[in-house]
This record gives sequence, structure tokens and C-alpha cells, in this order.
Amino acid sequence: MTHIIFDLLHILDEAGIDQPVAGNVISERLGISRTAVWKYVNLLREVGYVIDASAKTGYTLRKRTWLLLPYEVKRYLKTKVIGQEMHHFEQVPSTNALARQMMHEVGDEVQPGTVLIAEQQTGGLGRMNRVWMSPEGGIWATIVVMPKLHVDQIFLITMAASISLARAIRHEFELSALIQWPNDVFIGDKKVAGTTLELAADEDIIKYCLVGIGVDVNVSVEKVMPNLSRLVTSLSDELGHDVDRAQLFSVFLKEFERRYQMMLKGESEPLFREWRSLSRTLHRRVRVRTIRESFEGEALDVDERGALIIHKDNGEIERVIAGDCYLI
Amino acid sequence: MTHIIFDLLHILDEAGIDQPVAGNVISERLGISRTAVWKYVNLLREVGYVIDASAKTGYTLRKRTWLLLPYEVKRYLKTKVIGQEMHHFEQVPSTNALARQMMHEVGDEVQPGTVLIAEQQTGGLGRMNRVWMSPEGGIWATIVVMPKLHVDQIFLITMAASISLARAIRHEFELSALIQWPNDVFIGDKKVAGTTLELAADEDIIKYCLVGIGVDVNVSVEKVMPNLSRLVTSLSDELGHDVDRAQLFSVFLKEFERRYQMMLKGESEPLFREWRSLSRTLHRRVRVRTIRESFEGEALDVDERGALIIHKDNGEIERVIAGDCYLI
Repeated sequence: MTHIIFDLLHILDEAGIDQPVAGNVISERLGISRTAVWKYVNLLREVGYVIDASAKTGYTLRKRTWLLLPYEVKRYLKTKVIGQEMHHFEQVPSTNALARQMMHEVGDEVQPGTVLIAEQQTGGLGRMNRVWMSPEGGIWATIVVMPKLHVDQIFLITMAASISLARAIRHEFELSALIQWPNDVFIGDKKVAGTTLELAADEDIIKYCLVGIGVDVNVSVEKVMPNLSRLVTSLSDELGHDVDRAQLFSVFLKEFERRYQMMLKGESEPLFREWRSLSRTLHRRVRVRTIRESFEGEALDVDERGALIIHKDNGEIERVIAGDCYLI
Repeated sequence: MTHIIFDLLHILDEAGIDQPVAGNVISERLGISRTAVWKYVNLLREVGYVIDASAKTGYTLRKRTWLLLPYEVKRYLKTKVIGQEMHHFEQVPSTNALARQMMHEVGDEVQPGTVLIAEQQTGGLGRMNRVWMSPEGGIWATIVVMPKLHVDQIFLITMAASISLARAIRHEFELSALIQWPNDVFIGDKKVAGTTLELAADEDIIKYCLVGIGVDVNVSVEKVMPNLSRLVTSLSDELGHDVDRAQLFSVFLKEFERRYQMMLKGESEPLFREWRSLSRTLHRRVRVRTIRESFEGEALDVDERGALIIHKDNGEIERVIAGDCYLI
């Protein structure tokens, strides 16, 4: 998809849904032939736009695409940095792998806040390299940020992303999304979204972070991943209907930008406060599984590195930096 | 796919398969950023090109696409008119329907010889509106021509197309393709390709013709249409390996252009001669089925309107204008 196609779409958009624009008007405004207009209209149809054509009245936009095209996200987008540059792909192994490759090849040129979006991932990974199902209908994206921060502040980015996911879901759909430590978003007892974080650093200063985002939006869990239906839900399953991914994603990007800026300014305390208020983990009995051990206790708080503080049943206090945590 | 992507591909092509081109060289030649180059390389990968990337050496074209992109066809194309303008689509109901729509909407601007190509048709039709299976791997295309001819010369275009299909298959693969009256190409007892013809006329002068082409090229008949495997074959089934669709199609377009020009000049006799020499029908016993009747006899010849002349078993001579004809 290139600029001329988006310019064409913009012309149809200006007229509005169900309002025809004459072919020769489009042709003149874009400075291309009417055959070229016809061709581009067909390419728009191929990516899901419903456009009627009539020799008399011209082209009429009837329905928008279901794809999460940058053009669609940008219609709603109110950020200054995050998502100003977006790249969209139909199917990739994973947007994080793609972002890593992009940084490797042309990293010095990549604009901070660049977002890569895929309709489908064939090799998506969650935290700890676990397989992450990424079917059509979800939001699978990676945000590239370059905060000049010490690596030990990295957890703030995960926090900002998780909070923003939960906030965007709450804001758009009035669903009670909560955050499960460290990085998952739940509705009720089921996971609906998650984040990952990859990091490149010079010594202990961050060069760039790849913030991976996965949200089961318009996904029928029963159909696509039936064996996970006790553990996973989707927004469409919760609401009983599909929703506008572009709008949700743009709201998320705005929420993320706001918290990311706070973090850059060192305003971490409000972030912790917000994280705590959205936590599904704190003040609950949990079972923790780390690489070394497994134990139960009460989740008390997170510390400034993002570690979960557990009051173990044997009376000890333990900091968990990496591991899984289940409510019991 | 737009010009800038093809320009990028052209640069990789100039270097040659397995020869790297530095990212900044591409970036400078195209006047776009290196991130944009990276993006376009990924779009090329999405349409099937295998391109390696390395921060040190740059981008290396390893393998071409399997898609029948205009760029690929044009690499081989030696025509002056036919196929100079080409539009490619992933999936359409039918290229003929698309061409009809194009003529309806912007017909006064369409360049004669314009070709529409689809990777797949969901509603392809053969002669007499029969369903025509058009799976991935075939050549499904429509050529728009505007010969200033009387409508009763229309059969010459079907002839030119059928002959050109048979010739292209023979030339490229040394397979003994023959033409079954009126418009099918056979290898042995099985159909491998066919043509259709749609026509718009003012009074009795042709305004334009849509020449539909279908060839089962890289299609496993056993897999894709097992119920037709006694009647239909494909080039890959005959040869035991896939072949280069772009090259075959470009050869066909060249063959077609040559015969189409002959037709325009009124040189129909050599066309008839060639058609006769490639006929699978003439001088054979056949069963003919028309809308009205069914009979058997010997196929003697075609007349100047393309009608098949049959010496019926009852001694009569019958002209068949439209119908099916089977060898017996």
C-alpha cells in the first residue's frame, strides 16, 4: 500500500460513506489516469474496502476494511511520537523478529516510536519464548522505543504497556481488565492480552526496546484455540460482537505514549500507583513458580525493579524477579 | 505493487541472483530512506521473492516470486501492444468480469491490449457459462482487444488465441498440444487450456473483445479437481515438475500478437491453415451435441465463420456453429 492509494482513500473518505465521487474528479486530483484510479480502487477492494462503482456517479465507499492498516489506525491516532511511522504486514513470523531485523539492518534510520503491525504471526512468542497463538483478528504489533534509560528501569516500560492495554480495553468497552504480574491482561479468570519486551543496550544504557503487544480482539477462542478456552478469552467473545481494532489500537498507543513520557520524565510513582490499582495479583494468595522453586503465599507489592514481593506461607519475604504467578 | 517496488526489484535484478546490493546504494538510487527500502524489501518478500539481508553486504535476491506479476511477465515480453499494460490481482471472481467492469467504468481510457491477470478466480466461467476451476498455479487472464472488424469475423480471434496457446505450450515444453474445436487445447485425451470470448459491438462493428485465457500450468489435477482427472491435465502433471508461468505467458502473448496482427491485415487464410494443422477434431469421427440435437459423423473442416462442417452418418453435411464435439 502506497501513498497514492491512501490519497485515493482519503478522497473517498472526505466525501463520506455512501457518497459517490466521480472518477474523473479523483483522476484529476491525483494526477493519474482513470484506468489507474480503477486499478487502485480494485486494490483497495482486495484489502477489504467495499467500494461501489457506477459509470454515472463514480466511486462510493460503502464499508471500510477489516485489516489493521496504518491508514485506519491513523484516522483515530492522537499521538506525537508513538505510531507516527507504521509498517503493516499480512503475515510474518513475528513482529518482534521483524523489528529486530529492521534495527539490525537500518537501525540508525528508524524513527523512535515506529510500529510494526501484522495481521497474523506464524511464529509469535510470548514471555519466556512461549508459543503465542496469533490468529487473524487480533492485534499483533511491536513498538520500537529508544529511551535513554538505565537497563534497571526496563520494567517501567512493561508496566506502561500493560497499564495502557488494560486502560484502553476499559475505556473502549467498559470491560474490567486487570493486570496479572508481570505483563498479562485478564478479563475475569482469562487472559486477553499480553506484552513482551526485548532490549538492546550499550553497557547498561538502553539502545532500544521492542515492546511486543498481543491482544485477542476479534478472535473466537473456541474456534481458533479450543484447547485454551479455559485460560484465554477475546474481546469479541466477551462482548458477543466484533469491534474496531483500529480504534482500540489508536487509543492504546495514546495511553502508552502518555505513560512512556511520564517514565522518561522520571515520574515513576504515578505509574506504580496506577499499576497497583489495576493489579489482579496484589493482596491475593498466589502460587509462584520460578526456574528454581515453587511456593505459595500472599502477593504484597512490586518493588522499584518490578519484582513481586511475596509473603511466603513459611513467614519469609521473597522477591520474585522472573517467574509465573497464579491466583489460588 | 507500485513503480517504486519494481524499481527496487530492477536494481536487485541488475546485480543478478545471489549478488548483494548495499542498502544505501538502493536508497540513493531510489531517493527513499533506508527504512523505506527495508519496508519495500519486506513487501517483495510477502509476494514471494526470497531476499537475504545483511548489515554488511546489503540485500541479495536469492529467488524470484511464484506469482504471475506483470514485472515477471515483462522480463520476457517481446510484444508491441498486447500486454504492454497489465494489471495483476490476487483473487477475483473472474478476470473477464473484472475486464467487463473496467470497460464499463473507464473504457474510453483503456489501452488496447491491456491484460488482467488473477492468481485465482473464485467464479471463473468457461464457454457457455460453464464453471471453470481456476486454482492457484494456473494462468487466468483476460486480454482486451479492440479490432475494428465485423462481428462475423469474431471466430478468428478465438482461433488466434487457441493456436497461440497450443504453439506456446509446444514451443516451451515440446508437448503435443492440439486444438479441439472450437476453443480448447488438449494434450493427449485431456484438456489443458481453453479460451473464451466476450464481445461488445456497435451495430455489427466490434467495439472491444475480451479474450479469456485459462491454462492449468502448475496445478495438481489429482489434488485440486480429482473428479476431473480423467478429462483434465496440467502442464506440471504432464512434465512432472512446475514450470515458469511468466515465461510461458509472455511467449503466448507474443504468439497471440503476431496472429492478431495477421487477422487485422485480413490474412485469415494462414490462420485457418495453422488451425487445421493443429486440430485434434478434423478428419476424426465425432459426436456433436448442440442445443437442439445430437449426432455422429466425420469432422471435415471449419468454414470462414468458424463453424464445424460434419459429414453426418446419414450422408448429410451439417454446419455446427455452437455446440460440443467429442472424439469417438
